[in-house]
Amino acid sequence: MNADQALNYYQENTIIDTIQSRSRYLSTAMHYALRLGGKRTRPVLAILTQRFFDEKVDNILPLCNAIELFHNFTLVHDDIMDESEMRRNSKTVYKQFSTPVAILTGDALLIKAYQHLEIYNSNVYYELSKILNVTAFQLCDGQQFDIEFENENNITVDAYLEMIRMKTAVLLGATMQMTGVINNQSTQINKKLYEIGVDLGMCFQLNDDYLDTFGGEEFDKIIGNDIVKNKKTYLWLKALELSNEGQRNILISNMNNQNATEKIEIVKSMYIKLGVNENSKILSISYYMRAIEKLESLDINEQAKKNFMNFIEALNHRKK
Amino acid sequence: MNADQALNYYQENTIIDTIQSRSRYLSTAMHYALRLGGKRTRPVLAILTQRFFDEKVDNILPLCNAIELFHNFTLVHDDIMDESEMRRNSKTVYKQFSTPVAILTGDALLIKAYQHLEIYNSNVYYELSKILNVTAFQLCDGQQFDIEFENENNITVDAYLEMIRMKTAVLLGATMQMTGVINNQSTQINKKLYEIGVDLGMCFQLNDDYLDTFGGEEFDKIIGNDIVKNKKTYLWLKALELSNEGQRNILISNMNNQNATEKIEIVKSMYIKLGVNENSKILSISYYMRAIEKLESLDINEQAKKNFMNFIEALNHRKK
Repeated sequence: MNADQALNYYQENTIIDTIQSRSRYLSTAMHYALRLGGKRTRPVLAILTQRFFDEKVDNILPLCNAIELFHNFTLVHDDIMDESEMRRNSKTVYKQFSTPVAILTGDALLIKAYQHLEIYNSNVYYELSKILNVTAFQLCDGQQFDIEFENENNITVDAYLEMIRMKTAVLLGATMQMTGVINNQSTQINKKLYEIGVDLGMCFQLNDDYLDTFGGEEFDKIIGNDIVKNKKTYLWLKALELSNEGQRNILISNMNNQNATEKIEIVKSMYIKLGVNENSKILSISYYMRAIEKLESLDINEQAKKNFMNFIEALNHRKK
Repeated sequence: MNADQALNYYQENTIIDTIQSRSRYLSTAMHYALRLGGKRTRPVLAILTQRFFDEKVDNILPLCNAIELFHNFTLVHDDIMDESEMRRNSKTVYKQFSTPVAILTGDALLIKAYQHLEIYNSNVYYELSKILNVTAFQLCDGQQFDIEFENENNITVDAYLEMIRMKTAVLLGATMQMTGVINNQSTQINKKLYEIGVDLGMCFQLNDDYLDTFGGEEFDKIIGNDIVKNKKTYLWLKALELSNEGQRNILISNMNNQNATEKIEIVKSMYIKLGVNENSKILSISYYMRAIEKLESLDINEQAKKNFMNFIEALNHRKK
């Protein structure tokens, strides 16, 4: 089963779009949120991981649903906090409905995530729930740091990496770890699965940042959005770290530049001059290689391993 | 152990005010929220219920913490949705910090609620978590209906009672039921505990509505707040139900009355004329009596039963 097949399987068998609340309005908002959510990367990740251990994948569906519900909870609440009006060419939930309804929709999706795990037996539920609890709390911390960083200077590259680890990477780690738990794998293997997911999450997020500035049109991204918004990405923080005083002054004073095209050009050429575009690629690849190395060391179904690698490579290429 | 002793015990032994997040700011906001939260009615309810079955109460502390965290999650998010600026003479969380921080604080408190239950063994955790899941989802529905009712006419008294059941009463029911689960009680007894809690919740909420209009100064309430805000309470909906066309027109046209004192006086005298103040008292007492009847039927420690009754009677009197 390759990634496309896994995605098809998930889309044909998921029940998250049939979730009902007593309030028809809240149901509508939840369905809207789930349709916005998109690519179903986490369910595919879980299904392909499941195949490491088992031919049959139906047992992993409730986890896929739970993780996807959880992921969408974070998107709905984050969009309110970040005042993001659009997501994947549609209005975000709070824009389409209202802030109160979006807060409730997020809450309801989070609660439904836990509820979808109830189908597993009590021991498995306990283990999965513990992982979800600790992961969920890390995501809150990650989002909080992301908010705080906006108004803070002197953020280190390490603090940024820790922030994206908490905000993005740990959920991929938890998804793989939970798949191991459902398949009765050892603590050692589950730990390795977790680390693979975290490394992949770091790699993907660094790629996302890179593409925002250097992606080019073929990736269907508006280039330079992060620069225009003065977002403190890896590229930006690394550039500040490597710059001399003169270069630093150019970067800082350019933050108030109202000419977007010029603003982007100045930062981009400084990034290239300082080589942070290359730093970013190297760091991203190093996370990727760490994941591959750990994956190689797993004594699992070889074909499943290959399908998994194709999936993460495709994810990486799409983003590079 | 009476209610005061239970409260003291809880306050001396709870660890919810030491909750830490990696972000100092988020920690501060969580502590602020928990201090605002107030009376710790639910922990006291759990401790007094625990005494039905066991002299020792330390085993119930994690549940008390979880329920109190959960309750505060709902307060923090509800205050944003309802745009309530003050709670117990202090600024609400979103007013004191910001809406993004309040959203995250609520999320974090909800997640921490689940986490505090992890101390129980996997079977108990599973049962508790299932109850919390279904209860939490009902609270979302209740809050959503509360929001929807604001702009809807033709709300029936039954719909209102169902709304307050979901928004308020089921959490008291769940608290008592979960205490039963922790004490390995039968499904039948746990069901009865749940129903007692729900009946008490209905009784207390109806009293709250009643007091808002008829409480008098000794209860430290601003009288008529619900009337000024055109809130669709039991009193209001029952009055509309019982009124003739002329009386109904008086009530409806008075909704736009800008003179608060006069507005309150007109509605109050109409309530008394229609007898809905008496209806409200009777309905509240009938819930109370149902709870007492079920409590009487339980084969439990008699002294603990007496302490529980004193507690709920005090809660009721304070509010009547």
